[in-house]
Amino acid sequence: MSKGCFITFEGGEGCGKSTQIRLLTEALKTRLPSREILLSRSPGGPPAAERIRSILKEPTPGDDLVPRAELLLFAASHAQMCERLIRPALERGAIVLIDRFTDSTEVYQGCARGLAPDVIRYVDSLACGSVQPDLTLLLDIAPEAGLARTRTRAGQNEQDRFDTEKLSFHQAVRSGFLSLAETHPQRIAVIDASADLEVVHQRILEVIRERLDIL
Amino acid sequence: MSKGCFITFEGGEGCGKSTQIRLLTEALKTRLPSREILLSRSPGGPPAAERIRSILKEPTPGDDLVPRAELLLFAASHAQMCERLIRPALERGAIVLIDRFTDSTEVYQGCARGLAPDVIRYVDSLACGSVQPDLTLLLDIAPEAGLARTRTRAGQNEQDRFDTEKLSFHQAVRSGFLSLAETHPQRIAVIDASADLEVVHQRILEVIRERLDIL
Repeated sequence: MSKGCFITFEGGEGCGKSTQIRLLTEALKTRLPSREILLSRSPGGPPAAERIRSILKEPTPGDDLVPRAELLLFAASHAQMCERLIRPALERGAIVLIDRFTDSTEVYQGCARGLAPDVIRYVDSLACGSVQPDLTLLLDIAPEAGLARTRTRAGQNEQDRFDTEKLSFHQAVRSGFLSLAETHPQRIAVIDASADLEVVHQRILEVIRERLDIL
Repeated sequence: MSKGCFITFEGGEGCGKSTQIRLLTEALKTRLPSREILLSRSPGGPPAAERIRSILKEPTPGDDLVPRAELLLFAASHAQMCERLIRPALERGAIVLIDRFTDSTEVYQGCARGLAPDVIRYVDSLACGSVQPDLTLLLDIAPEAGLARTRTRAGQNEQDRFDTEKLSFHQAVRSGFLSLAETHPQRIAVIDASADLEVVHQRILEVIRERLDIL
């Protein structure tokens, strides 16, 4: 249907997503100077979806989101992003890179918040329709190592709501992602994110060469 | 299940909902001085749901909400309101009065925005679970008369996004509400809202006496 290419990045806290997305964006821009490269994040993206993101990321004093409201807000953000940003970009032939997408919803809301997988999949599929990633790069790291990285940079980055959950939550998240990768081996590539960032970057380029025809 | 009583108000623009809710609240407080009367609005209610309301009611410049995002935001607001506000209030034995609820979602998103009714009902039922109104008061008025009222008070109340839609939209909304009332005659009472406000108020008290055992 689309001429573009849609790649998502997934993984737990401290897996190095932001850094790897930046490195991949630079590499793609250098190697494909005439191709449009669009970078965004979920929840968020278009302005209305960024407003939804702020409700999800900045706690409301005295009124924590209930799990179903959280799920529906993520889905609303995805619906807006798919229709306003991803679909038009793919139709223009762009390479679209998104920091988190529906796999995160399924893992965080499902495995960790206890919502039923079929409910989450129905809501996400309502939100996204036919907009699905061509490739998902799952940056896998042990929660202890990932959280240690997060603590190191805590001086620079403000902690958000999800950073404050306990280790067992992050362990459930990791298992959830790995289980999704087993279910969707064609789409999801598991990348060892404990290695040095340049090693991880090279592995990502390799996977893209193996699985997509853009490089 | 609950000891309380849950009443919703529905209707198109200018049907007089706000006034009638205020009159009913005062009447209930006078007649039932020891009973908790809780008044709220949808979308909105608890603080997090009010944040969702602001995204729905205050347009994002250059990024109108797509219909599925709008539906999911209404549902997120309902999920938060049901769990944090309505359910606990009903368990305390309160009479809960809500300005709009899921019938508005079904009518505005379905009849007027073209989303499939079964999709809307699934999402709303996911959001609200077992929290359903005992009585819905549908204030019915011809769109021309309702919109004329809205224009009269335009100096005081700021117009929101839905006020700017065309007359045909409001006609579809009215038909949608009346059709829901036919489908759910036990729950939804149609009130002629074109009459004087005191006449409408008395009719509402009559309906409550006929259908509920709280007065």
